[in-house]
Amino acid sequence: MNTSDNKETTRTEIHTIGEFGLIDKVVKPFSVVNKSTLKGIGDDAAVIDNEGFKTVVSTDMLIEGIHFDLMYHPLKHLGYKAVVVNLSDIYAMNAIPKQIFVSIGISNRFSVEAVEELYWGIKKACERYGVDLAGGDTTSSPRGLVLSITAVGQGLQEKLVYRNGAKVGDLICVSGDLGAAYLGLQLLEREKRLFLDNPEIQPDFGENNYLIGRQLKPEARVDIIDLFDKNNIVPTSMMDISDGLASEVFHLCKQSNVGAFIEEEGVPLLIDTELQAIQFGLDPITCALSGGEDYELLFTVKPEDIDKIKFLTDIFIIGEIVPAEDGVTLHTKGGNRHAITAQGWTHFSS
Amino acid sequence: MNTSDNKETTRTEIHTIGEFGLIDKVVKPFSVVNKSTLKGIGDDAAVIDNEGFKTVVSTDMLIEGIHFDLMYHPLKHLGYKAVVVNLSDIYAMNAIPKQIFVSIGISNRFSVEAVEELYWGIKKACERYGVDLAGGDTTSSPRGLVLSITAVGQGLQEKLVYRNGAKVGDLICVSGDLGAAYLGLQLLEREKRLFLDNPEIQPDFGENNYLIGRQLKPEARVDIIDLFDKNNIVPTSMMDISDGLASEVFHLCKQSNVGAFIEEEGVPLLIDTELQAIQFGLDPITCALSGGEDYELLFTVKPEDIDKIKFLTDIFIIGEIVPAEDGVTLHTKGGNRHAITAQGWTHFSS
Repeated sequence: MNTSDNKETTRTEIHTIGEFGLIDKVVKPFSVVNKSTLKGIGDDAAVIDNEGFKTVVSTDMLIEGIHFDLMYHPLKHLGYKAVVVNLSDIYAMNAIPKQIFVSIGISNRFSVEAVEELYWGIKKACERYGVDLAGGDTTSSPRGLVLSITAVGQGLQEKLVYRNGAKVGDLICVSGDLGAAYLGLQLLEREKRLFLDNPEIQPDFGENNYLIGRQLKPEARVDIIDLFDKNNIVPTSMMDISDGLASEVFHLCKQSNVGAFIEEEGVPLLIDTELQAIQFGLDPITCALSGGEDYELLFTVKPEDIDKIKFLTDIFIIGEIVPAEDGVTLHTKGGNRHAITAQGWTHFSS
Repeated sequence: MNTSDNKETTRTEIHTIGEFGLIDKVVKPFSVVNKSTLKGIGDDAAVIDNEGFKTVVSTDMLIEGIHFDLMYHPLKHLGYKAVVVNLSDIYAMNAIPKQIFVSIGISNRFSVEAVEELYWGIKKACERYGVDLAGGDTTSSPRGLVLSITAVGQGLQEKLVYRNGAKVGDLICVSGDLGAAYLGLQLLEREKRLFLDNPEIQPDFGENNYLIGRQLKPEARVDIIDLFDKNNIVPTSMMDISDGLASEVFHLCKQSNVGAFIEEEGVPLLIDTELQAIQFGLDPITCALSGGEDYELLFTVKPEDIDKIKFLTDIFIIGEIVPAEDGVTLHTKGGNRHAITAQGWTHFSS
């Protein structure tokens, strides 16, 4: 198993360089890329120029032992993922993230080198998505690691997409493939149990690098947002899939005051995901519906936009918006209908 | 001693209403007051209209056992203070806060009622300062309470004030009075120790309500920002005093590449603060210089602005900006000069 401590050759205690020393060390490698970042780190607050755009803000808190396990989540990947999941929320508004603010609480279990690893991952995400680290807070914690990230973006008012805009007849679409991140987590958990039983054992992820990667190093779908822009598509509603498709469809329907009809056949699952699910004795569609952490986009488009959507790479039409009274249902490959709940789905009683 | 648990008549476990139930409960009492808050809670991100203003963003993380002790920090006050300290950072830019984003991590030690108390305090601060709760994240924590607050404000580019604008000859000013919050903390710590020795004992704060209040329920100096606006004053540099005057003067000088000459006689200390310091066997000026958490404003103005400043209520001229090579020094009432360090001050060696 891969723990960050194993990789460290030197260990510098944080108290030897102090809070400001630590900030200097981890923040110096960051440079400003957006001209909207008028003032970044180093003052009471950051200053952002929105040049007529609307400001879009999203925030997430990640706590060790709840959201991540450093036993299998290397700090570099954790830093990267923590940023990506925030950016994903900004993209889900059809907006472009520009700045992030990173606050960390760290116990003395963490060395300066460990914090540098975390910020290395944060920096890679900033570079990949063109955002600036514009501020934050660094503090100690009695135990464990706490990360709180706020992302600030820009959007055009007429192009911003909310969760509450879906209308009856709209097509329901998702990007990418679903369920893989959940199965990646199951694989990591399995290897952790084996390691705890016998620390001599080496991890065996077989051919499952894709599934593991989806869990440890997810990407936000900026490419889909670009596709919308290039093809002149503005979805009627959108959100990112962090808690699993079922739960997100449920939220979107509730906020839009509509129902949804999902075709199992349309839900994109990779063959790797299906095979691994079966190996674990799990139903692949359940993994896709309830798995979570895929950070794909769930969105709806007007029916007349079907020609714009249907040939786009990596976008799948999975169903249709129906009246609220028809509920949220799944039409299985076997021809059955199930009511979808926020937790997944239950057999349709009628 | 006052612990929040004593005051609870009912205790609802958070798991009985779930995360969304909890959010609904604590967030419902909040209403939107700023028209710039186009979209608040309930989507992937909040949307803010800046109408040509610059966006100003500040963030802080508060961790139980590091930043607060619930033994003497009632949750209502904690919620209020957590917001105020963030708003203080926005005011310190000469900008106006409009939205806050509140993320909390809570262990199952906290009941629904406890979280409601915390948000009651947050709400009071929102009302007092006219800001909207526009988003956040609610999560569980393995132990203790973690609060992360991000404040977003608006400022006019030509009126924003940074830490790096102080010039030689500028007057150094502070608002309010200093050292009181630190002595309030000492009083609370003393009562806590007495309580731990003998839980039957009742707290005895004597006539020290002011000092205690400065620690438990600080206010941000929006009134000073208003005064600047009404009197057409734009400070050359500014920051809020959260870590103590000495440390803040040091930061401001470092960023402005100047030195400072502080007159002890000019540093505003209330008689209550002086008397309590002496009772604790502390030097009053040390409390003012190194105490922290006063959340007053430290700022510099051009010498020609002296007539605009000198008759303003609650603003005190405490010194002058000097060349960097002259260092940061304190001129005591006794006529001595001391070098001020970020940690406080040490005797001048020459």
